[in-house]
Order: sequence, then C-alpha cells, then structure tokens
Amino acid sequence: MATTTVNHLTNHHQLSSTTNRHRITSYFNDSTLNDINKFSNKSIRLAKSITNLLNLSIDKPSLKSLLQRFNQNVVVQADSKLDLPTSSPKEDISTLWRQIHGGSDWENLLDPLHHLLRREIIKYGEFAQATYDAFDFDSFSEYCGSCLYNQQSFFNKLGLQKHGYDVRRYVYAMSQYEIPRWLEKSYVADTWSKDSNWMGYVAVSDDVETRRIGRRDVVVAWRGTVLPSEWYEDMQRDLEPLGHGEAKVERGFLSIYKSKRVTTRYNKTSASDQVMGELKRLVKFYKERGEEVSLTITGHSLGGALALLNAYEASIMFPTLPISVISFGAPRVGNIAFRDELHHKGVKALRITIKQDLVPRMPGIVFNETLQKFDDLTGTLEWVYHHVGAELKLDVRASPFLKRGSNFIGIHHPETYLHLIDGYVSSTSPFRPDAKRDVALVNKYCDMLVNELRIPPCWYQLSNKGLVSNKVGRMVRPKRSSEDIPSPPIEEENLDV
Amino acid sequence: MATTTVNHLTNHHQLSSTTNRHRITSYFNDSTLNDINKFSNKSIRLAKSITNLLNLSIDKPSLKSLLQRFNQNVVVQADSKLDLPTSSPKEDISTLWRQIHGGSDWENLLDPLHHLLRREIIKYGEFAQATYDAFDFDSFSEYCGSCLYNQQSFFNKLGLQKHGYDVRRYVYAMSQYEIPRWLEKSYVADTWSKDSNWMGYVAVSDDVETRRIGRRDVVVAWRGTVLPSEWYEDMQRDLEPLGHGEAKVERGFLSIYKSKRVTTRYNKTSASDQVMGELKRLVKFYKERGEEVSLTITGHSLGGALALLNAYEASIMFPTLPISVISFGAPRVGNIAFRDELHHKGVKALRITIKQDLVPRMPGIVFNETLQKFDDLTGTLEWVYHHVGAELKLDVRASPFLKRGSNFIGIHHPETYLHLIDGYVSSTSPFRPDAKRDVALVNKYCDMLVNELRIPPCWYQLSNKGLVSNKVGRMVRPKRSSEDIPSPPIEEENLDV
Repeated sequence: MATTTVNHLTNHHQLSSTTNRHRITSYFNDSTLNDINKFSNKSIRLAKSITNLLNLSIDKPSLKSLLQRFNQNVVVQADSKLDLPTSSPKEDISTLWRQIHGGSDWENLLDPLHHLLRREIIKYGEFAQATYDAFDFDSFSEYCGSCLYNQQSFFNKLGLQKHGYDVRRYVYAMSQYEIPRWLEKSYVADTWSKDSNWMGYVAVSDDVETRRIGRRDVVVAWRGTVLPSEWYEDMQRDLEPLGHGEAKVERGFLSIYKSKRVTTRYNKTSASDQVMGELKRLVKFYKERGEEVSLTITGHSLGGALALLNAYEASIMFPTLPISVISFGAPRVGNIAFRDELHHKGVKALRITIKQDLVPRMPGIVFNETLQKFDDLTGTLEWVYHHVGAELKLDVRASPFLKRGSNFIGIHHPETYLHLIDGYVSSTSPFRPDAKRDVALVNKYCDMLVNELRIPPCWYQLSNKGLVSNKVGRMVRPKRSSEDIPSPPIEEENLDV
Repeated sequence: MATTTVNHLTNHHQLSSTTNRHRITSYFNDSTLNDINKFSNKSIRLAKSITNLLNLSIDKPSLKSLLQRFNQNVVVQADSKLDLPTSSPKEDISTLWRQIHGGSDWENLLDPLHHLLRREIIKYGEFAQATYDAFDFDSFSEYCGSCLYNQQSFFNKLGLQKHGYDVRRYVYAMSQYEIPRWLEKSYVADTWSKDSNWMGYVAVSDDVETRRIGRRDVVVAWRGTVLPSEWYEDMQRDLEPLGHGEAKVERGFLSIYKSKRVTTRYNKTSASDQVMGELKRLVKFYKERGEEVSLTITGHSLGGALALLNAYEASIMFPTLPISVISFGAPRVGNIAFRDELHHKGVKALRITIKQDLVPRMPGIVFNETLQKFDDLTGTLEWVYHHVGAELKLDVRASPFLKRGSNFIGIHHPETYLHLIDGYVSSTSPFRPDAKRDVALVNKYCDMLVNELRIPPCWYQLSNKGLVSNKVGRMVRPKRSSEDIPSPPIEEENLDV
C-alpha cells in the first residue's frame, strides 16, 4: 500500500518549500547552501563563458562511448614501449646551439620540428615541470609553499640528474597585491614563511653537458600555477610601466616578480633581485674563466610570464649575453612596446602553445565572462597585450593517447605539453610512433589519457599523504629532514633596471 | 582607458545570451553543461532536502573560524599519546561472554558502557571496517570489486592479526535488480567478474582467542557502502517476504543477500548460500569436537542490514546457537514481524548509531527529497520499518577531535563510529581521556578531524595509486600477485530457509 504511493509520488521532482517550512532547520545552514550555490554558479558561468568566447570545436563523446571505443592500437603502441628508454640519446649540439636557441628566430626548425630542438625543448620543459613536482602543496605542512627538497638533491629526487645541471639558487616571491589563489599558505601557525612561496631556481650546466651543448648554460626555471583562471581574472586589468621606456606589463605578474618587504623572511629582496644577483655572479664567474655563457629562461603558465620579465631585465644587465626564453602555455604579458624592446635587445622567445589551451589567449578571455560588451573589449585587450617571439603550436587532437574533450585544466598541464611536443613532427603529420616519454606522465595531475591505457587520473601522490606508522602503529606526520628545511636567502643589493 | 571600462563592466554578473549567440560553440557542448547543471542541482536538492527533513541542529562554523580556533588541548592530548598502545590489553572474558553478547539484552552494560564490552565492540567494528580497507575500488583494475588480499594474509595485511581470528571463507554477492551505485565495476573488458562484488568473509577465533573469550566464535563480517544515499533512494520502496511467516524485508537488501545466476562465475550460489554453507560446516565441526560455539555477525551500513538477514536465516538453521548481531550505522531492514521473529528466535542485536548519522534513520529520509507529501509518507514508512534490538547511541559532539559540522558522509564512516565508541563512557560523560585508538584513523576516507591535528583528509591511499616505476623508469600497473587473484567459490547446495 505504502509502496504504490511512493512510486507514484517519486515522479515529482520539486520540493514543497511552503508546506514544510517549519521543518527547515540548520543541518545545512545558509552559508553552506550559499557555498554550494556559489560554487555551482561559478562553474556554470565559467563553462558558459568559455562556450561563448571560443570558436573552438572539440567533440566531447560521452563517457559511455569512451568506454565502448576500445582503442586497441593505442594499447599496443603503449605496451610495445614498456622496455624502451624514455628519452632520445644525447647528441653533440655544440655547433648548433645558437640555432637551437633562436639565432635565426627558429626559422625552418619548427615545422617540421628539428629533432635536436625537440630534445632541448623537452629538457627545458622538464625543468619547468619540476617546479610543480617539488612544490609542497600540503596546507597542513608548516613548509607549505616551499620546495620539498634542498638544492643539492633537487634534480636527483625528480629523476632529472640525467640532464647534467646543478641547482645554484632557489628563488622566492611574494606579492604586494592580494592575488586570489596565488599564494599557497599553511594552516599551521608557526610556518616557515607567511608571505612567500618558493618560485623557482637558477641552475647551471655541468662540465659534461657544457661540452655537449657548446657553452655554459645558465637556466632560470619559474614555477607557474596549474589553475590560473581565478587569479588571471583579477590581475590582467592594469598595466604598469617596466624600465624607462614605453614598455608596460600586467600589474599582477610584475608584482610577483618585483615585490619585497623588509619584515618578511624570504622576500627582504624580490624574486627579481634574487635571480639577477645570482645571474650576475654566475655570468661574471664563467666569463672570467673565458667560457662562452648563455642564459635560458623557462616557465609554464604564470612561470612563462615571469620568464619574459626576467629576460627583459637580464637583457639590460647583460647586453651581449645570448638570452632565450622557452615558455609553455604562457599568457600575454605586456604591450607592444614591451614586445618591441625585447626584440630589439635580442631576446629570443619560443612560445609553445596548445591550440585548445585557454591560457595563451589571456588576457581577453576568461575575465570577460561577466561582461556584456566583450567583443569590443576583447579587441581592446588584444590590441593592448601582445605575444612575444615565435610560436610552436600543438594540438591535443594529434595524440591518439589523449581523450577528446573539454578538459581545459588538463589541456593546460605541463605534462600534456611535454607529451605533445614529444610526438610532434609537423603541423600536418600524425603523432610520431617513436615518441619517447612515458605516456603515463600525462595523468600525473589530471585525467587526460584514454581509459584503455588504464592509467588512473591524478596518480602523482604519496603513500597515505606522507603519514607514516610510528613504532606503536599510530599514523604520524614525519618531520622534514633537516637538510630539506628551507632557509632564508642571502640578501642581495637592490638591482634596478 | 581600457582599464576603466573593464572595472566598470565587471560589476555585471550576467552573460548576454542574445547578442553573442553566434559565438556559442561547442568547446563545452550541451551534454557537458547538462552534466554540470545536473550535478549542481542534485547537490543543491539533496542539501535542501536534508535541511527540510531533519530537525537536527548542528552548528557549522566557517572554515575561517575553524582555522582561528586553535584547540591547544586537543593537540596536546593527541601528542601525549603518540607512544601509547592503540588498544586496551586483552582480558579474560570467558565467564562474561554471554552478557557481552546480549544475554540480558545488554541491560546495565551500555550506559555507562562496560569496558570489556567496549573492547569487543571495537574488535567486531574493526572486522566490519576491514571490508572497506581491503576492497579494490580501482575501476582501472581488472580485479575491481574484489578483495585485494587472499584469505590467508587478510588480517595480517590489515594489521588485525592481533585479534586472533582466521578467515575461512570469502563471500560474493550480486543483485538481480539494478541497484544504482551499488556494484563496483571494472572498465576493463576481461575482468574477474562482471556481476559480483566481494561482500565479506567468515572467520573463526583461534585457540588462544577461544580460550580468552570462552567459546569458539564464528564471525561473519558484511561489507557496506560508504555513500549510501543514492541506492537507498531506489531500494527501500518495496518489502518482500522472508521465511514463511509475516516477516518482510526491504527488497534491495534481500536481492543482494539472495541473488544468484548460473551464468555468473562468483554467484552460481547466493551470498546467503555461501555463508550458510560455511556456517553449517564450521558449527558441525566444532560442535563435534565438543566445543561451545557462538555466531557473531557484524557489518556497517548496508553490511549491518545484511547482518540481520543473515542472523534471521542462521537462527532458523541453528535454533540453539547463541547468535548476536553488532551493527554500525545500519538502516532499518524490515517490518515489525521481522523484528518480532528475530526476537523470538533469540537473536541478540546491538545497533551502534550516531545521533547525527542519517542512515539509521532510513528508510524515510533521503529518498523523500522529491516528494511533496513526505510527512505522511515518512510516518507510513516509520510504521512499516522497524529497528531491531538494543541501541548504543553516540554523538559526534562528544569528541573534541571532530569538526563540528554537517559532513554527513564523514559522520557515517565506520572509523568515526570506532573513534566515538573508543571515547564513549556514558551518555552524560565527556570523551574519555584514555581512549586508545589512533585518532588519525578517522580521516582515512573523510575530513572529520579538527585542522589543529594536522591529519590530512582522506589520507588512506597508495603511493602513485599503485603504479610503479619499471626498469626503464616507465610508470606501470603491477600485476596482482597470483595468490591474491580471486578464484570462484566452490558451489554450495541450495539452502532455503
């Protein structure tokens, strides 16, 4: 009897909000409901906004069809590689390095992509990617926002010692402006730093690598952010001057690059001061030894933007030094004068982008979601902000290993970039079958690989989130080993451009 | 200039859906938007529904106030225990076991809670909890839905060998009805079973434990589900008869307990057949050796419901055997005749509940979210469905280690139950300071602990989700070791009640 009534009534899908108001109590209080609403509205708004703003056409099959489509070739291709090395053999590029670093603006090297250039791009991309793998995201750690490892063990811990570089200095940044979702903060009261985050590092090629590549290569790798949409919205509205000319850049990027405060532990000097001080020492040291020296600056996303600011400063301090920027998924940073000044100072910039990645279209994309007259405005901003340098444009659809779909976070991830570069031959060729990198890496932080490969999404994680069992079997947070505890950087003299 | 315009316009929070319709393209296609809407609507509906339906008043402080409130006492209390054992010492209960298992319906043992009963409840609760820790939830595994370990190593792998029991049989279940979100299925085509999930086990006390507790204790532990809301909605609408009397039970539970199909690998016999066959063998064996034998059936959530069905059957097959059920957060299962028959047959049931847990209030709660006349209906269902046995009622607010808030998934978790039992003294006393269990366990699968303890939420996870680096450094899914690969159960003769 009761049963019939129930089955009948479940066809209704609305709550009665009037008859039972007396029972509306606070199991969920208002703020919870607001949070749920806010979150959903935000997602929906973002989705709608992107639908409005892009003229891309990516087909998104349902999960069902994804599961049904058994991509046997992909599995066979992936399985057949399981015992093969994950990178190309090293070749001597000592006579080619100027070309590889943009000596002729990468003309005739990008389409088709020269195999030696590909290998170098992947090397620098792995340097940029390492800033994510080594970052302490754990807000319950008193070291949240720092690097997990010390400088000496950095490349070893990340499996990058193969590249033959040594870290010489860590870089920390703060921002004088409140930038939403930028700074990773610890919940813990007594933390290593309340203001700063680890923001990257300076490294130098060792003697063996130096011989192979034809000069002493100084590298700066800048950390980015994986979820850029929120803070880009707030940041890109203001341009501020850089240097003494007409060049202007986005205020938020400049703030991260230049902010300092004497009351902080890690940013008594700015990120810019820290890097430029180290570069000055290193360039002087190797020049005095009579070595050829070059500077390569790399970064993904926000890190790519900082790389350009860094290159701008370095080109003023070292007018004759070969400087190149290799960026991945970076947004536009400054106006046309900024672009022109970089060009005139001889900075060579190679921007790697993915056609479906939104971030290289910024500014002018995401923050417009709430605007009514966005067409005009996008025009204005496109006119204001300019990209710098040559572009290597990738396409997620080129890889048989990647899901087709609208995963705009996954598409922006640095491992997705590295995977697509690894398989890229030319704008008209299919993914190369002899690509080297481990395809599984793509899913480290996202869900981009086709299910047939059976690589779980977001697999990069510690056992029990780093908790370990103590001698009586209680799960405890281990102390970070003393050599991996961050210590404040040595102060630099101020270095103004 | 552009800047001013932007700041002005960002005050609008609506998209123009008319002027730019030509740009509405398929980066997100409709089905994605529908999914987002559906998901959000569902969450909001559920939240609103619960707000409507419950007369609970749990204060939910904001995250900010949680972070500000530094609960020094809690930290000190937790830290001071780091070297103490995690369970009470074993005491001989051979003369008390009938009382502990409900011989006098737990009169005068629950409030205050007798310390020897507490220890036994925790033992059985850990047996129930183990069914979650050992379950393969990985949908990319061909063994998804099975037990990760073989019977021989089961308790060792889970750190439960201390209890002195041996697993004698694994139990598998299927359902003849489609029960949403019940069956965990592998994405992989060639899987161990397409129809069945591992559903629990039968174990027996070893000789040492048998001496301590005064009889040979046969245990059945039934696995539940951690996210019950969806399938409860669909399941609780129909009652079906059980046995030959008036007793009726919820159709979904009965289906899981009783379904079988000759074309399956693991359910040619039903879960009921598998368990009853094993019990028959074990009881016969130990009786013939002249031993005193008892049966204790345990389970959490859905597992607690199955435990009652199992007890009903067992009480018919073994009319003189002492049978007790210790359930955690279990819903109501059947009508008043079901309750009375269990009572008359001498089954002793102890239901552990948490005041703020929704599941023990089912049926009559969650599925009503879409109904308009739910008051009547809730009344009807409460009249139809009856709880069985004695109740030990806990309160999340008793523990200083738990967040105050409306985390209804976390509140339902078995580790939350075990934590609260461990600290329970009486309905009027505070959490006991000499509680033994590791508080960190509460956050295994949820986010219930106050932030000051710095135990990350949902920390129970494998390094890199089980992927391992092969000899060339590629991340691969290791093969499950051959002894842990499930094999179909031996067929039982049909055992009808």
